Amino acid sequence: MTVITLTTDFGSGDHEAGVLKGVIWSIAPQVKIVDLSHDIPPQDILAAALLLGRSAPYFADGTIHIGVVDPGVGTSRRGIAARFGSQYFVGPDNGLVTLLLEKAEGNKVPIEFVHLDQPQYWLPEVTSVFHGRDVFAPVAAQLAVGVPLSALGKPISDSIRLEIPKPSRTPQGWFGQVIHIDYFGNLTTNLQAIHFNQPKEVIVRIKGVQVAGLVSTFGERPPGTLVALFDSSGSLALSIVNGSAAHQLQASVGDDVEILTLE
Amino acid sequence: MTVITLTTDFGSGDHEAGVLKGVIWSIAPQVKIVDLSHDIPPQDILAAALLLGRSAPYFADGTIHIGVVDPGVGTSRRGIAARFGSQYFVGPDNGLVTLLLEKAEGNKVPIEFVHLDQPQYWLPEVTSVFHGRDVFAPVAAQLAVGVPLSALGKPISDSIRLEIPKPSRTPQGWFGQVIHIDYFGNLTTNLQAIHFNQPKEVIVRIKGVQVAGLVSTFGERPPGTLVALFDSSGSLALSIVNGSAAHQLQASVGDDVEILTLE
Amino acid sequence: MTVITLTTDFGSGDHEAGVLKGVIWSIAPQVKIVDLSHDIPPQDILAAALLLGRSAPYFADGTIHIGVVDPGVGTSRRGIAARFGSQYFVGPDNGLVTLLLEKAEGNKVPIEFVHLDQPQYWLPEVTSVFHGRDVFAPVAAQLAVGVPLSALGKPISDSIRLEIPKPSRTPQGWFGQVIHIDYFGNLTTNLQAIHFNQPKEVIVRIKGVQVAGLVSTFGERPPGTLVALFDSSGSLALSIVNGSAAHQLQASVGDDVEILTLE
Repeated sequence: MTVITLTTDFGSGDHEAGVLKGVIWSIAPQVKIVDLSHDIPPQDILAAALLLGRSAPYFADGTIHIGVVDPGVGTSRRGIAARFGSQYFVGPDNGLVTLLLEKAEGNKVPIEFVHLDQPQYWLPEVTSVFHGRDVFAPVAAQLAVGVPLSALGKPISDSIRLEIPKPSRTPQGWFGQVIHIDYFGNLTTNLQAIHFNQPKEVIVRIKGVQVAGLVSTFGERPPGTLVALFDSSGSLALSIVNGSAAHQLQASVGDDVEILTLE
Repeated sequence: MTVITLTTDFGSGDHEAGVLKGVIWSIAPQVKIVDLSHDIPPQDILAAALLLGRSAPYFADGTIHIGVVDPGVGTSRRGIAARFGSQYFVGPDNGLVTLLLEKAEGNKVPIEFVHLDQPQYWLPEVTSVFHGRDVFAPVAAQLAVGVPLSALGKPISDSIRLEIPKPSRTPQGWFGQVIHIDYFGNLTTNLQAIHFNQPKEVIVRIKGVQVAGLVSTFGERPPGTLVALFDSSGSLALSIVNGSAAHQLQASVGDDVEILTLE
Repeated sequence: MTVITLTTDFGSGDHEAGVLKGVIWSIAPQVKIVDLSHDIPPQDILAAALLLGRSAPYFADGTIHIGVVDPGVGTSRRGIAARFGSQYFVGPDNGLVTLLLEKAEGNKVPIEFVHLDQPQYWLPEVTSVFHGRDVFAPVAAQLAVGVPLSALGKPISDSIRLEIPKPSRTPQGWFGQVIHIDYFGNLTTNLQAIHFNQPKEVIVRIKGVQVAGLVSTFGERPPGTLVALFDSSGSLALSIVNGSAAHQLQASVGDDVEILTLE
């Protein structure tokens, strides 16, 4: 039974998210639909791309991910569908696939992209303002009922990829950035386990404060303590135990994070 | 496979929305249940009525919509079930059906209403404070498993309809109102395409500012620009490209909007 | 068809809630998954325990409840699975089951607990920071596909139970506390119908104001009035008709509530 996931910036108070489901089930009544999130900050393509990259590995073969964070809807930006190994993506060509694509490249699985140019697979009436409903939901449903990717549009190889900042080497360690802040106020960085040789023997600096050493989990320190640890996706994160690091440090996406390795 | 949709003002942090699903599946384990929204502002019947009107056209025949924005629960206000062509509504008789009813009248499809007065289709114990759980969810589930509408109560023809403000003609164009503000801060008005003969040749005035001409979509103007356009339901909307018109204009539902047609 | 419910403090903007569903469906593709709430305040075990206790009675036999409010993840706190009559719980051993357990004891249904110590039922890689994904979701899915509770770990009888404040007798009535504030700003107390002999003949005091008598439902009084009533779970609640008692009284969980019975 195919699963279709939804990742959007529609919020939870309006009709858009429900309408996607109505459209999908009208074409493919058997699919399961799961909301990954409709609370992506408006127009925040990077946040949606990160969420898709972190979620997709836990879904079964055949899963189809719809992403609709689409400030360019109705302009010349293309609609795309893509295959990354055994999973699919449908949405605007604006970088939402970046993490899915990087992972697929890293895992050396087959990758295909098509430019959605076959209106017979869309709703009969297509507005300039809601391609999630008019194009992407019907296309995903068509994939779910067996229409091959190649029928949905012509192959392309120049899809858009976000420039996600990469950590850089420094004389004493690494220099990176906060790339996401979660509901708890944890700060996720672009620093990964590979940037640490002896994880306990480091100092992490952010916003003028520093943390000595990494912990394995929050409960190793008393509530209110600032800790550094690897989160559930293997990224270095800064957290306040039972509190909000974002609030306490007044931190934002893009803030610098520095690692000093002690030898 | 029947779909039951849920539209409520329960919020997402409490037990009520989940309980509706438990009750429905206990009676009708095969139905699909979809949350249209549980984040209707408390007691905002108009917002729920608009959301239902905008969502229903995208759902399949046989879909049953439960609406529970119910400040009059436990008073003499009636519970109702209704058929609008091939879809159903179950909820309090307080105007939630207004847009569904107007569309059904416009489309000249058969319309039936019953007053829910048959307690054998409700939970055994009915409180005065939660008819969503005790009456409407079980009734919708009974409809889904094949109980006919006519068994659920006696026919009525005087269900309550909200007075939704209508645009009025002015010497130079039309005078309307903001009727909804979405998650992006877009301002939806009660002005529709029929109020425009040459859409490009108009001036739209709101809160002391004016916009010349309509665009087709957001991306036609730079971020931060105030634009007027037809939204995905064909209503005139005021938007700030990649921003919030509600915030920038300090606008609210009920604010006046004026169209001047230039000839 | 088995239902698995999810109650977490993950919020709705991140990947965690979706990932639980991916993991469950990878093991048990036929189950229905329902979000009770992902908007439990961070680390608020009591709020989640109350929500589980109020929701579970409305779900069918065989339902499996996953609770993940887990500030102790990765420490020595145990993972548990439990059976309360015909329903199941899977999550951390930190008191999330308290209300489910009290109800099961009250109803004298069979109760079993196991300490999750059989890693062959978990994901192959278990982090210290996300046991919802790595342990609880797979264990719940295994239960759903027929693995017996006893296979998942060794029996225990010392699971953790929250100390939920109990009302106390006073010369003139009862003394209790606010234990929950809902989306509408209603104040739920730990006072129940059994604490009232003649419900109309009481005075309820909170935050220096008092309410004479109970109403049956909100609509019995004009908007803006402070009323006391039994909520849909039979608890005494303080509400402002069409408003927020929490906001108007500046009330918080833990605030005192006093009942004076008049004779």
